[in-house]
Amino acid sequence: MDGSTTMVEPEAEASGTCGVIDIDGKLKIGGGRLCLIAGPCSIESEEQMLSTALAVRDAGADILRGGAFKPRTSPYDFQGLGVEGLKMLRAAGDIAGLPVVTEVMDTEDLPVVAEYADILQIGARNCQNFSLLRKAGRMGLPILLKRGMMLTIKEFLLAAEYIIAEGNSKVILCERGIRTFETETRNTLDISAVPILKAKTKLPVFVDPSHAAGSRELVAPLSLAAVAAGADGLVIECHITPDTAWCDGKQSLTPGQFAALARSVRGLAAYTKRDH
Amino acid sequence: MDGSTTMVEPEAEASGTCGVIDIDGKLKIGGGRLCLIAGPCSIESEEQMLSTALAVRDAGADILRGGAFKPRTSPYDFQGLGVEGLKMLRAAGDIAGLPVVTEVMDTEDLPVVAEYADILQIGARNCQNFSLLRKAGRMGLPILLKRGMMLTIKEFLLAAEYIIAEGNSKVILCERGIRTFETETRNTLDISAVPILKAKTKLPVFVDPSHAAGSRELVAPLSLAAVAAGADGLVIECHITPDTAWCDGKQSLTPGQFAALARSVRGLAAYTKRDH
Amino acid sequence: MDGSTTMVEPEAEASGTCGVIDIDGKLKIGGGRLCLIAGPCSIESEEQMLSTALAVRDAGADILRGGAFKPRTSPYDFQGLGVEGLKMLRAAGDIAGLPVVTEVMDTEDLPVVAEYADILQIGARNCQNFSLLRKAGRMGLPILLKRGMMLTIKEFLLAAEYIIAEGNSKVILCERGIRTFETETRNTLDISAVPILKAKTKLPVFVDPSHAAGSRELVAPLSLAAVAAGADGLVIECHITPDTAWCDGKQSLTPGQFAALARSVRGLAAYTKRDH
Amino acid sequence: MDGSTTMVEPEAEASGTCGVIDIDGKLKIGGGRLCLIAGPCSIESEEQMLSTALAVRDAGADILRGGAFKPRTSPYDFQGLGVEGLKMLRAAGDIAGLPVVTEVMDTEDLPVVAEYADILQIGARNCQNFSLLRKAGRMGLPILLKRGMMLTIKEFLLAAEYIIAEGNSKVILCERGIRTFETETRNTLDISAVPILKAKTKLPVFVDPSHAAGSRELVAPLSLAAVAAGADGLVIECHITPDTAWCDGKQSLTPGQFAALARSVRGLAAYTKRDH
Repeated sequence: MDGSTTMVEPEAEASGTCGVIDIDGKLKIGGGRLCLIAGPCSIESEEQMLSTALAVRDAGADILRGGAFKPRTSPYDFQGLGVEGLKMLRAAGDIAGLPVVTEVMDTEDLPVVAEYADILQIGARNCQNFSLLRKAGRMGLPILLKRGMMLTIKEFLLAAEYIIAEGNSKVILCERGIRTFETETRNTLDISAVPILKAKTKLPVFVDPSHAAGSRELVAPLSLAAVAAGADGLVIECHITPDTAWCDGKQSLTPGQFAALARSVRGLAAYTKRDH
Repeated sequence: MDGSTTMVEPEAEASGTCGVIDIDGKLKIGGGRLCLIAGPCSIESEEQMLSTALAVRDAGADILRGGAFKPRTSPYDFQGLGVEGLKMLRAAGDIAGLPVVTEVMDTEDLPVVAEYADILQIGARNCQNFSLLRKAGRMGLPILLKRGMMLTIKEFLLAAEYIIAEGNSKVILCERGIRTFETETRNTLDISAVPILKAKTKLPVFVDPSHAAGSRELVAPLSLAAVAAGADGLVIECHITPDTAWCDGKQSLTPGQFAALARSVRGLAAYTKRDH
Repeated sequence: MDGSTTMVEPEAEASGTCGVIDIDGKLKIGGGRLCLIAGPCSIESEEQMLSTALAVRDAGADILRGGAFKPRTSPYDFQGLGVEGLKMLRAAGDIAGLPVVTEVMDTEDLPVVAEYADILQIGARNCQNFSLLRKAGRMGLPILLKRGMMLTIKEFLLAAEYIIAEGNSKVILCERGIRTFETETRNTLDISAVPILKAKTKLPVFVDPSHAAGSRELVAPLSLAAVAAGADGLVIECHITPDTAWCDGKQSLTPGQFAALARSVRGLAAYTKRDH
Repeated sequence: MDGSTTMVEPEAEASGTCGVIDIDGKLKIGGGRLCLIAGPCSIESEEQMLSTALAVRDAGADILRGGAFKPRTSPYDFQGLGVEGLKMLRAAGDIAGLPVVTEVMDTEDLPVVAEYADILQIGARNCQNFSLLRKAGRMGLPILLKRGMMLTIKEFLLAAEYIIAEGNSKVILCERGIRTFETETRNTLDISAVPILKAKTKLPVFVDPSHAAGSRELVAPLSLAAVAAGADGLVIECHITPDTAWCDGKQSLTPGQFAALARSVRGLAAYTKRDH
């Protein structure tokens, strides 16, 4: 790809950030410390969000996630709580002292989502929704961009370039599995994307093992693999009671499982820093 | 898929159309006569559009296509002429007496695109842009929905359901190739999707061989295969001077090639109707 | 691919056959007349084979197929009747006056299979079993080579080249579906492979819609699509009583269904020859 | 898959080995210690093999690999030195004190390969060559079975079952990348296969990052990811002078690079054992 290897360098050099994204002076993404984003697939209630926020914070999460606008394959599935959900997410984050990230699906929702979120998420199904990329970029907030499940790495970087071309280099790239013939997993986590993206850009590279795997049992080994391969952060689905989750319960960790995972991956991150 | 086989039946029965879409009383899509949509990838100029419109009409096209808002992989590629392009498309269609179809990529553009177009196109990259599907559905115009290149047939039908759930059953399903490991073609035309979609719904099923193939030489055999498999229509890229086209020239037919193709596929459509 | 377009030309020119394969002076494959291969997945009994042979012959089949050595995903599934099956196939073919084709899976079985078969089949799973390709090539018999379900067209042609390099240019290329994420079909029939293979070689190009589709209902539309796209022949699974078939019953046609299909595709083949 | 989770248990329980494979009393595969297989793609000369053997042994390799019979996509590429190559491999292994593994492609070569090798390799292209699986199984030697690049995990386990059904449970499963649309890597390493295979069987699970990646730079991060995900061993291409290698030089490590990798992965293996 012409320009892909250097694409964020002018921005990065200009700002001196070299790919590190600062979240309100409280948190640095991409600067060497492993960043953990955790929370439920869907925002369901004030109580659920607050319990989750406190639990994942105590377990070592850096950022709270939760979906208020949900991209669902069927129009008859639950579509998210919308603005009410955003308020619950914000309130829970504020009480727990965690920045929050949530998905935006429509250019018309950008102002309201940006009012409540610290980081905007653009999901896999919208990774080539070029209008959304451009206009989200203009909001100035950091953007967690998930790789479309049929996008080549080259196309994924060009999608990021739509945001960067608007003057916003605060893009977090997130590998979340690609579509293949294999059916044991929901998608095939393309672990090679981590070192390739790290080599081609200075942007932070995250991995979402929960959506790739589609089952709880695989989240820990895939998280460890991601950290060993050089990922700067992880996005982990965590629910206080996965069995009653409105969506994606099958792949969500309990707070206790998340705490154990956080210890493992932080230990590994510390080890790998010493080692190579 | 729950409900997929019956999904458009209540609508269809209510209106008595049984999957036939009427375009301003001038044209019926899905009623047995093969429908040919033709035109350039990008609208480039008034003259280009008018020459194309007259040429494809004379060659037997039913609908004129042309892109004013272009979904391009890179932000640095030509992005389309926007509203100026819409005006050129409309003017050319009016002079030639052809309805026009063009892609809409952003919910905010829906009003202006609907002002100029007879049929809205939602492209493969936006096939799971659920906000766009819903809001486009509400415009009331027929929608040409292209299958996302990583979508299963089941997911494709659920994407159509987003439009239908808004009370708009005028959806034209368009197979345009899925992403596989094969590199001889731009995408792999999933010809099996034609009979499967025909069996599962009453919606018209079209095929876009140009985008699937990515090369001019394959457009004729894939078009014939599509008609033989039962397609209700074809979307063919046609440019007055493919070698100077701003995009997709490699797969565009000249008006002369389109005329030959139109004769072949209309002949085959007539033959197959006699035969089985 | 270097040399792919010309690969069989020296042979073809030398023999003057231009890609036409002669079967014992009784049948020409690739010379313009559509060739129909039909028969059951597995050879089950003398009676089954004879009934099938007579039925498919009367319905217009040119060649009888049947599997004696079966490549089964599980070692605990039925593996075929072996040499006894070969004898049943040969006897049925002789009585019906049809040449026979059957799969060979092991280099050690080549002599015995060659003793009973007119055409050797190498299956999709062995398409890059290079030892088998070479040694089968040396037997001198025509070879029906099925495309591996993960092979690019380029790799498929190079697999054929293993046979041709042994001095045997009597290779029939057979597209039978590639592996993708789509689950409505067993494999995705790559219809584009037909015109591409026809353009790159002079070898006859066949299509096996039965294995690609995995369901009876799709066999007819895919067969028609294949003929419209230019295929020289079809391989159709046909069983006298599909519901009791030992394997692949779901996709097998009854003799009556095969007869109807044969009429359709022969009619279309005749039509397309007049038309373009 | 019926029986897949328990498939090797009767064997394993009977022998009390629980999936540990003993190589001549010198080496245990699958017992907890990370196993490193290293060597060139092709055996080229006595000197090359001996230099490589000594270098990889000193760097910490457990087993020497090298190809004498090469499965090449084109019949016109170098096909391996055959039996002469086997002798060079054996001699180098004996001098270095390392067991040797090499690929067998043809049932007829089984006796000669088994004469020289400690472990038989069955390559990805032959993973559903059922005759080879059966007959190789009967040789009694341990078998390194590479996953076919289009095989589901379920099908891969059933391929292993062909060997086990012959009474030979000494099967090492090796993930080496599957075929997808992504072109940055030669194949997409399916890292999820490691924990899934570990959960479904007691067989040792290896990873070949060299063939999956297709480029040297990715071998280290993919190796670390594999170990973090729980792999029992790695297969690494290593050549004394990669730039002059007869094949796969692009993805081969120098002995010095291999030594650095061996330190990294052994360190990580030791760390992960302490940690979780």
